[in-house]
Amino acid sequence: MIEANNWLDQITWNDDGLLPAISQDVASGRVLMMAWMNLESLQLTVDGGYAVYWSRSRSQLWRKGETSGNRQKIEEMRLDCDGDTLLISVTQEGGIACHTGRESCFYRRLDGGNGWQSTDEVLRDPKELYGSK
Amino acid sequence: MIEANNWLDQITWNDDGLLPAISQDVASGRVLMMAWMNLESLQLTVDGGYAVYWSRSRSQLWRKGETSGNRQKIEEMRLDCDGDTLLISVTQEGGIACHTGRESCFYRRLDGGNGWQSTDEVLRDPKELYGSK
Repeated sequence: MIEANNWLDQITWNDDGLLPAISQDVASGRVLMMAWMNLESLQLTVDGGYAVYWSRSRSQLWRKGETSGNRQKIEEMRLDCDGDTLLISVTQEGGIACHTGRESCFYRRLDGGNGWQSTDEVLRDPKELYGSK
Repeated sequence: MIEANNWLDQITWNDDGLLPAISQDVASGRVLMMAWMNLESLQLTVDGGYAVYWSRSRSQLWRKGETSGNRQKIEEMRLDCDGDTLLISVTQEGGIACHTGRESCFYRRLDGGNGWQSTDEVLRDPKELYGSK
C-alpha cells in the first residue's frame, strides 16, 4: 500500500471519474491497448502490481487476464503533464493483450486507399483464451 | 486525399465526436502524448501527413507544432480492435512533444511512497518554444 501522500491529487479524472491508461510492453516497446481506470481500479493496480481496469461497457472492475490468464504485470507507471492520462509499462503475460488473440489491440494499419489492413497474426485462437465464449 | 472507402466507418467516436490518439516516436519507441481528434482533424492529419488534434480546452483545431515548430510527421496510423483509439507513429520534429520542453508528456514516474517524480530533463525552455507565453 502506497502511503497517502497526495499522489492521487495529481490526477485529473474526467467527468465520469475515469482516467485513460495506455499500456506498453516493457520488452518490445509495443503499445498494447488503451483502457480506462477509476479510482478503485487504480488503487488495486498499484496495490496488487497487476493491471485492473474499469470496464465501461460492463460497468465493473476488469481484472485484465482474469479469464484468459494474460495478466499485465506493472513495471512502471507514468503520468502525463496534464495529469489526465496514465502510461503503464507492463510485462504482458502470454504475450497477448488483445481479445482477438493478437499481441496488441492496434493490429490494423491505415493503408492509403485500401483502408485499415490487419497486419498482425493471431497468436492464439480466442476460443482457447475464453472458452466457448 | 484518401478515396472514400469506408475507412472512416470503422471508427467509433465518443459521445463528443472525439477519438483519443496516442502518439509514439518512431525512432525511440517512446510514447509521447495522448490527445484527441475529431473528424476534421483526422482528415487533415491523413491528408497533410502531420498530426492535427482537436483542443478540447480551446474548442479548436490544434495543429501540433504550429507555434513551437515541433510538428509530428505521420509515419503510420493504427486503429485498435474496438475502433475507438488511434495509435500514430510519428517523427517528432525538434525531439520535443511536451509543452514543458521535454521529449514526452509522460515525464513523471510513480515512485512508491514518494509519489510522482519527474525523471526527464527539460530539453528546451518553454519560453523559447512559445515566446513569452
